[in-house]
Amino acid sequence: MAARTTTSTSRAELIADAALGLLAERGMRGLTHRAVDGAAGLPQGSTSNYARTRQALLEAAVRRLAEREAAVLTPDGLPVPDGGTDGLPDALALALHRYLTRHRELLVARYELALEATRRPELREFYDATGRQFREQLTALMAAAGSAEPERHALSLTAWCEGLMFSCAAGSHHAAVPEPAELRTGFRELLRGMLGG
Amino acid sequence: MAARTTTSTSRAELIADAALGLLAERGMRGLTHRAVDGAAGLPQGSTSNYARTRQALLEAAVRRLAEREAAVLTPDGLPVPDGGTDGLPDALALALHRYLTRHRELLVARYELALEATRRPELREFYDATGRQFREQLTALMAAAGSAEPERHALSLTAWCEGLMFSCAAGSHHAAVPEPAELRTGFRELLRGMLGG
Repeated sequence: MAARTTTSTSRAELIADAALGLLAERGMRGLTHRAVDGAAGLPQGSTSNYARTRQALLEAAVRRLAEREAAVLTPDGLPVPDGGTDGLPDALALALHRYLTRHRELLVARYELALEATRRPELREFYDATGRQFREQLTALMAAAGSAEPERHALSLTAWCEGLMFSCAAGSHHAAVPEPAELRTGFRELLRGMLGG
Repeated sequence: MAARTTTSTSRAELIADAALGLLAERGMRGLTHRAVDGAAGLPQGSTSNYARTRQALLEAAVRRLAEREAAVLTPDGLPVPDGGTDGLPDALALALHRYLTRHRELLVARYELALEATRRPELREFYDATGRQFREQLTALMAAAGSAEPERHALSLTAWCEGLMFSCAAGSHHAAVPEPAELRTGFRELLRGMLGG
């Protein structure tokens, strides 16, 4: 997102963050331009001025979500293993634990947007692009670790993370976030099943 | 759900199915008593008569979802392995594939209800109970297969299924449902990583 000035960036972020907060707290039903004005503490009309249509507001929310997710999941990028996977379970477990414990509201907003994307092809395209970078990094990591099917294995790892995140955020186990050690064991088992050893 | 007569059962199912259809098609915003009347082809007021409050309507939808999920996932119950896991990847792969290909709209409704449950404690309790039976069956299966931590392993398997289901229904890969053979390979890898061998 290109920023023209610091002020316009701040306002754009403020609006998008308020939209994400509303999605988490009240769901898609609670997201209106007027509610975003209120939640962001901005004068009425500010959100409409920034994102005229509902589609534009949703896109701003998805874009901001991708930025914040990247900062949580891969603040320094995923670790590059030296032809092995020794550091990978640790790195993935810590990233996942950080997301689950400190950014649960971001997850709920994420699922609201994913479901809305099933009904809005324009949002679909936008939403899909945001997950691609993480998957591509993971595919490269699996290839470096000796996987014969790095793409399928990256998808499988992603599915496991996704399922855990969904369960913790909105599913039956929403209260119980696994400890990092338990997540690490889970990742180790997954990798052992995929790569042998 | 005890049925007093065939007619009342049919009407209850008709209403709950219409509610699930609306949730999938239009999201939580599209679910109203009046819209359910219309979608079910019933006279106006029928849905209010059956489920007076929004909470009652949501509970009816969750209850019906659990019935339909059980019929899709375990029409004859999960297979009982004879101290091994030979038949398990097959059975799980086929159940998951059936769900993903034939009942995608049920999945979207499911996620809408799960997200709404984060905002309605009464629905939460209701929603959580529906997943318990499947997890308990899976835990027993893992114990029978020699798992040292059957509960954690059942949760891990469930997370993987959940993540795949979410991705296919609403995530970045919603278009591409993996073939049964690919799902089977994924389950085999997961089980190998958990149980060794």
